[in-house]
Amino acid sequence: MADGFVDPAVLDKVKVGKGYIAAKYGFRNHWYPAILSEEIEEEQVVPAQICGEKIIFKRIDGKVFCIKDQCVHKGVPLSRKVECYTKNTITCWYHGFTYRFEDGVLNGIVGVPESNVIGRKRVRTYAVEERKGIIFVFIGDEETVPPPLEEDVPPGFLSEGHVLRGRRQDVNANWRIGAENGFDSTHIFIHKDSILVEDADLALPLGLVPLHNGAFETTEEDGGPKGVHDIFSPEAINPVFEGKIDGETVRMGRPEGKNMLPQTISIWMPCALRVQPWPAPDITQYEFYVPIDGERHIYFQFLGKTVGSVEEEAAFDKEFKERWVEKALIGFNKDDIWAREANQEFYADDTGWLRESLFEADGNIVRWRKLADEHNRGIQGPEHVR
Amino acid sequence: MADGFVDPAVLDKVKVGKGYIAAKYGFRNHWYPAILSEEIEEEQVVPAQICGEKIIFKRIDGKVFCIKDQCVHKGVPLSRKVECYTKNTITCWYHGFTYRFEDGVLNGIVGVPESNVIGRKRVRTYAVEERKGIIFVFIGDEETVPPPLEEDVPPGFLSEGHVLRGRRQDVNANWRIGAENGFDSTHIFIHKDSILVEDADLALPLGLVPLHNGAFETTEEDGGPKGVHDIFSPEAINPVFEGKIDGETVRMGRPEGKNMLPQTISIWMPCALRVQPWPAPDITQYEFYVPIDGERHIYFQFLGKTVGSVEEEAAFDKEFKERWVEKALIGFNKDDIWAREANQEFYADDTGWLRESLFEADGNIVRWRKLADEHNRGIQGPEHVR
Amino acid sequence: MADGFVDPAVLDKVKVGKGYIAAKYGFRNHWYPAILSEEIEEEQVVPAQICGEKIIFKRIDGKVFCIKDQCVHKGVPLSRKVECYTKNTITCWYHGFTYRFEDGVLNGIVGVPESNVIGRKRVRTYAVEERKGIIFVFIGDEETVPPPLEEDVPPGFLSEGHVLRGRRQDVNANWRIGAENGFDSTHIFIHKDSILVEDADLALPLGLVPLHNGAFETTEEDGGPKGVHDIFSPEAINPVFEGKIDGETVRMGRPEGKNMLPQTISIWMPCALRVQPWPAPDITQYEFYVPIDGERHIYFQFLGKTVGSVEEEAAFDKEFKERWVEKALIGFNKDDIWAREANQEFYADDTGWLRESLFEADGNIVRWRKLADEHNRGIQGPEHVR
Repeated sequence: MADGFVDPAVLDKVKVGKGYIAAKYGFRNHWYPAILSEEIEEEQVVPAQICGEKIIFKRIDGKVFCIKDQCVHKGVPLSRKVECYTKNTITCWYHGFTYRFEDGVLNGIVGVPESNVIGRKRVRTYAVEERKGIIFVFIGDEETVPPPLEEDVPPGFLSEGHVLRGRRQDVNANWRIGAENGFDSTHIFIHKDSILVEDADLALPLGLVPLHNGAFETTEEDGGPKGVHDIFSPEAINPVFEGKIDGETVRMGRPEGKNMLPQTISIWMPCALRVQPWPAPDITQYEFYVPIDGERHIYFQFLGKTVGSVEEEAAFDKEFKERWVEKALIGFNKDDIWAREANQEFYADDTGWLRESLFEADGNIVRWRKLADEHNRGIQGPEHVR
Repeated sequence: MADGFVDPAVLDKVKVGKGYIAAKYGFRNHWYPAILSEEIEEEQVVPAQICGEKIIFKRIDGKVFCIKDQCVHKGVPLSRKVECYTKNTITCWYHGFTYRFEDGVLNGIVGVPESNVIGRKRVRTYAVEERKGIIFVFIGDEETVPPPLEEDVPPGFLSEGHVLRGRRQDVNANWRIGAENGFDSTHIFIHKDSILVEDADLALPLGLVPLHNGAFETTEEDGGPKGVHDIFSPEAINPVFEGKIDGETVRMGRPEGKNMLPQTISIWMPCALRVQPWPAPDITQYEFYVPIDGERHIYFQFLGKTVGSVEEEAAFDKEFKERWVEKALIGFNKDDIWAREANQEFYADDTGWLRESLFEADGNIVRWRKLADEHNRGIQGPEHVR
Repeated sequence: MADGFVDPAVLDKVKVGKGYIAAKYGFRNHWYPAILSEEIEEEQVVPAQICGEKIIFKRIDGKVFCIKDQCVHKGVPLSRKVECYTKNTITCWYHGFTYRFEDGVLNGIVGVPESNVIGRKRVRTYAVEERKGIIFVFIGDEETVPPPLEEDVPPGFLSEGHVLRGRRQDVNANWRIGAENGFDSTHIFIHKDSILVEDADLALPLGLVPLHNGAFETTEEDGGPKGVHDIFSPEAINPVFEGKIDGETVRMGRPEGKNMLPQTISIWMPCALRVQPWPAPDITQYEFYVPIDGERHIYFQFLGKTVGSVEEEAAFDKEFKERWVEKALIGFNKDDIWAREANQEFYADDTGWLRESLFEADGNIVRWRKLADEHNRGIQGPEHVR
């Protein structure tokens, strides 16, 4: 399982953001969304893999707990065949080893009730937070006290009155390819024929070109989320609607669209994007590119809206289900998923980080790499995924 | 093909049974069952892979011979397209190189009958024994004189009057995972819902717990089979029918069953298990976990019974086919196959041998590892499988 | 991608033709057929992989150009989604980077028309020649001036009045296994039951046995093609029709056939075979075993005939399509494809080159290895395939 981490010989040659390039399996000691609240009912057991670590969730009396998905005895995955004999535990299907979710302690062996290892062994536990319909898990050292969840999500994500609706799917590309695809301002070129463009009457340029290095800013205050944001003001970024080659116009964007969106795009530690507003003037889109392992990520998409009443939330819920899932989250972002998967091979052995050739419009991505290098709380390594 | 052997850095850290952990491809200079007699008719050619070695059998005038399944010339597998022009030989489909099964000598090249390499090259041969309806092959150095087959099977297996019926199937797990699954006394937990339990009216506990270290013995006499056996006497092993967690009964075994089986389970070099009696009071079950390569084994299952007449054998044959294949060999042991395959990933890169955490009920398995380390006649290595 | 090249420890032990054994991905600075003319129409874009290099062809005003199939920016394959906005260019589907085929220069970015990298970056180009209905590409260093195509094809291949018809298919075997299978005079054994034998009324022996070392000659003049050829004269090669083992006839070839073909077989740098005449007295067969990567080759088959008029060419075209494709190119050579794929495993990790055991009839193959070692213009290495 140590396979798939970055070759040190490659890492030695990296000049900018070495810690980011090293983080093929993600950053350690951060919060990550893992599943949606609606996916785990009372007493249901749900497995996941985050940053290479195989874990298992259970909801007990409403609260969600998480332990490592591997019996200490012979190492089998507990989730391969779920057996629960008490509400607070899971029992290994192989020899009956039973673990308490609260502390991971082996509190029984079904067929060996007098064993002297009972109470003396345990699986590790993971801190869990459930907020806004999302189950977050802290992937890090068990002895590390997790910082507030607010530090690991975009600003505003957890605000009162801000409701979220979302979905997730696995993508066959490293999480950094996901993150950079989302934050990359010139990749808008791939969306030129998207079904969302007409549906949402978007003014869609073929390129969003930063006019100078001040086209992005960072947020790096202690105790808060760390991120880089583009400002889409006319002084900072030029939306190009007339596509040209050698001075000749070869393709038009859609300048006639009524909605010129978004106004700012930002990326946040450890792996979140915020597009504001999108796909409509009163909605914000959030994305998380959660590492599964070195070659795949869970792509979480959320739409957020600040509502003032239950009725307003119900209306947003209806709009989400009936319009945005199909047109925006699937219809528009399928181009991104396709692009990430098409880009995976080049970076698969990590030499792509040395062979790529970024250009001036990629300044925000370089800044993101530096910020992630500086503000991460650790790098996930081979020793963490066994 | 050298891939898949144990990393020496892992092996260095092994404390108990180093030679056993090293034997990912099995032990060398031992007899292994390869196919059933009924699978190879007169002049039929049958390929197999044992301990990583690709071999080919042919029955000639009733006797089965075995040679390496690789032409010396360009290395192609002879079995890929079988061509036999004389009873005693096989001809390579590519250039007509023809090998005599008796001694492996290149005794002709069909289209180059005057070649000066005829009689001067050969493929290696393997010693074969056919006993009790089973074709055994000696996987070892060609210059080693094989010991009697009796040393490499459980005691009683070849006894006069003892008839055997069996089957085989490939399992996607290392052979040692197969062997340890079979000999492991607390894994009985996985069989609690087996169809065999009611069918054979078994008293099935949820755990078989050794009461002290004397719960198993070894057989290590020179010139005989080497093995470890559990004794299921009340002084040695406690059958637990009441499954408990935290003092609460959470699940019952089947104490009401009429047949309390087995009375002893034993494991034998190089890779055989004996369960006595099983699945009925007058029958013994034998299993062999024959290495195919580092990740798979052939799972042979035999039922043995001592009979006094041809009629008794015919009755046993009928019982075997009509009852035991479905209820016991398939119905009961499918749980074991599933468990082995689910356990394979943890041990696949061999770090599992360092990360596992055995408990007091695994004393017999630790003893088996030591015995196998001490009594094997060699370790299969990369140089043997090309 | 560096995986799959020859292990230096293996190469150290090679005694004959070290450069040939090293050339797992083919020879560098040579011409290779890549596609057929009929496969690429005006303005059509066609990708290929030759010697591990991913390239892309486009026909512009009748002439075919070739560039590397990888955007300089983030390394995605241009061919994954072809977008062309001008006749002379291809535009990367991801960020609109646009490359001119003639010189590979980045001559525009559709959505960033003012970018300062325009005109300053480029992808590499490859020299192309279109002759006799075949697109050849020069796989080599961009600064190397390609020699005339005539040096890299068999003599006569490009002669005036010599018309060619052909096909191609991918084969799952290293290109050297393809080349040696074709040139190997005793492999005729595999064709003994081919449908072509009766159809073309061939005199087909079971072996073609060289009578002495003079059974082959080489062509090594400066400035011309380099090759080894067998002469099928009665003094040099003995066609064996009576297959024998231990002095007994076990199988007959087909001595009664009217057409005793071929009269000479030759092999040419970098990877071509000529069989003359074949499959009929007035036709020559040419084959190219073009490396795709270390494990696959494109198998080109051509039949060539010297014609004196348009009508004669039309008749040959009809004969090719209606008879030879089915009976010869597919029907006869499918045995060869099968044999190459069956031989791949033995040579896959390159230890097969050390473990094989050639015999006296393989003298022409040994000579070919030496000639290829001496006359190649470079070895394709890991640094060339990224």
